[in-house]
Amino acid sequence: MSKLFSLLELIRLADSLPRSVEQLIATSPSSTIGLPLLVGPNDTQIGIIRPSILEHISQYGTVFQIGPTAVRLNPDLDTPQARTDAVEAVLRQLQTVDDPELVCLKGWRNERYDVHGDRKKEEGILMELERAAAGVLGVRSYGCHMNGYQRDPQTGEMKMWIARRSKTKQTYPGMLDNLVGGGLAAGVDPLSNIIKECWEEAGLDGAMVAKNIVNVGAVTFYLVNEERGWIPTTEYVYDLDVGNSFMPKAVDGEVQGFQLLNVDELKEHLYSGEFTPEAGLVVIDFLIRHGFVTAMNEPDYIDILSGMHRELVSPGPQYGL
Amino acid sequence: MSKLFSLLELIRLADSLPRSVEQLIATSPSSTIGLPLLVGPNDTQIGIIRPSILEHISQYGTVFQIGPTAVRLNPDLDTPQARTDAVEAVLRQLQTVDDPELVCLKGWRNERYDVHGDRKKEEGILMELERAAAGVLGVRSYGCHMNGYQRDPQTGEMKMWIARRSKTKQTYPGMLDNLVGGGLAAGVDPLSNIIKECWEEAGLDGAMVAKNIVNVGAVTFYLVNEERGWIPTTEYVYDLDVGNSFMPKAVDGEVQGFQLLNVDELKEHLYSGEFTPEAGLVVIDFLIRHGFVTAMNEPDYIDILSGMHRELVSPGPQYGL
Repeated sequence: MSKLFSLLELIRLADSLPRSVEQLIATSPSSTIGLPLLVGPNDTQIGIIRPSILEHISQYGTVFQIGPTAVRLNPDLDTPQARTDAVEAVLRQLQTVDDPELVCLKGWRNERYDVHGDRKKEEGILMELERAAAGVLGVRSYGCHMNGYQRDPQTGEMKMWIARRSKTKQTYPGMLDNLVGGGLAAGVDPLSNIIKECWEEAGLDGAMVAKNIVNVGAVTFYLVNEERGWIPTTEYVYDLDVGNSFMPKAVDGEVQGFQLLNVDELKEHLYSGEFTPEAGLVVIDFLIRHGFVTAMNEPDYIDILSGMHRELVSPGPQYGL
Repeated sequence: MSKLFSLLELIRLADSLPRSVEQLIATSPSSTIGLPLLVGPNDTQIGIIRPSILEHISQYGTVFQIGPTAVRLNPDLDTPQARTDAVEAVLRQLQTVDDPELVCLKGWRNERYDVHGDRKKEEGILMELERAAAGVLGVRSYGCHMNGYQRDPQTGEMKMWIARRSKTKQTYPGMLDNLVGGGLAAGVDPLSNIIKECWEEAGLDGAMVAKNIVNVGAVTFYLVNEERGWIPTTEYVYDLDVGNSFMPKAVDGEVQGFQLLNVDELKEHLYSGEFTPEAGLVVIDFLIRHGFVTAMNEPDYIDILSGMHRELVSPGPQYGL
């Protein structure tokens, strides 16, 4: 196999905010390095304002209050709704600005993420944020991905269904993806979300999925990407044995087609860099959990595992309370 | 169930060096916070010298050269053997010193860990270090743990074999442990190690184990513990379906006995804090990978996953090259 990328290089491409930069912003925040974005009465950090963004939001002082060591959302915005509306109004303005740092706003989705507060302080949901804008403010984004696999009844060989994204998708056109995956919209929990996506994206029956799908972990990483911005990302990971008679159908035009790949083929497509960053990590995690990538055949085993489980600074969601 | 500890609290008890302390030592090392321990021509960091240890090693200037921002092993010690011997001689002296910070040296094992260099600089093994001394110098320690489980052929219910450590074990007497587990001695690879331990600790046949055992990941954490010192720890994790007829036998007096526990019982023993830190994390990792602890029933799901895959600063081992 020719290797354009090692597995660890794929991790570093996804988890691409250097930890030293994050440490500097934590210990010596400044307008030239980056400032934490704080919200609510407890100054909970929900994001990072990098220098190129600071410039743009500095014109909206009634919403963003820029101090020497932090940017605060105006405390007069004291309800989730007020924060959501005020921030969205600014971002709508910035959408019209011609700056490559704001290009992710061109892909406005009219879908929002929850922005979570500190559970110990019982903050609940602090606000909601347009998905395309998470990368502008360095706010955590969430999704669910499912590895849809089967085992050959004779040989036991594992094969995984992989989708190729449509050439017209706004993010990662033409790249390889998991059979099912998608962002986690505000107010939706991961399990409901993946069951819904399984139906919409692969025609998998909800009752069958609910019975057999297994939540097997999550990958977390801090993506820095020219098109998408700065995005601390969490992907909840699910495995589903879809059985040998299952055939996926491209229903919504978001996918060009599907392929059923064995382990060597999965590795080959990883090494050639064909997967989206998210799906690449989810597939690597699968190959590790199922013993196909091991300490004995992968020199970067330990660094891969810590690289795709990065600790993220801002509070995340908490279900099962 | 009564809960003395949440799962996240167990993670924090194992991964107990605050990241802020590690950051401070990285960015502003000093004799009052801690100093990196550097070895070899490239000043590769292999450990941390905390203030209480600095005092003791300062008397051995021909081995440890203490500077304002780092402790260096004397560069005249320019072979792995020379380093191993010189450091061991100092530690043997410190064994006789009456200071609780050095108590871990009382458990001298005459077994060593490899201390790994930087692969990019082709350093190989920089030296070896007595296992009981890793916690004195903050040097990485390694082990392998195996989840030995079975599934009820009728109901499919998963149960796991758990060992209770002998009351006379030097570390964690009387606590619960995985069916098989042990330190990774210098020169041994994880797979050979776990196969050997499976035979020695549970009487599991080597050929059967080699065929069926699955390397499913690793957990990494930075343990700070009164008895054991400061230990950046890596445990390679294995799963083995031991089948329904298997009965473990305590062979070497290191174990009082074994119990076969279902998921609720495993959780109960976790919540009551009965597992060793290492085994606790390995069992939590198992419960997550197999879908028993999920995003929907565990509020700290994401923090647990990142907490048990901590990035460790010093270079680690690399197999499969």
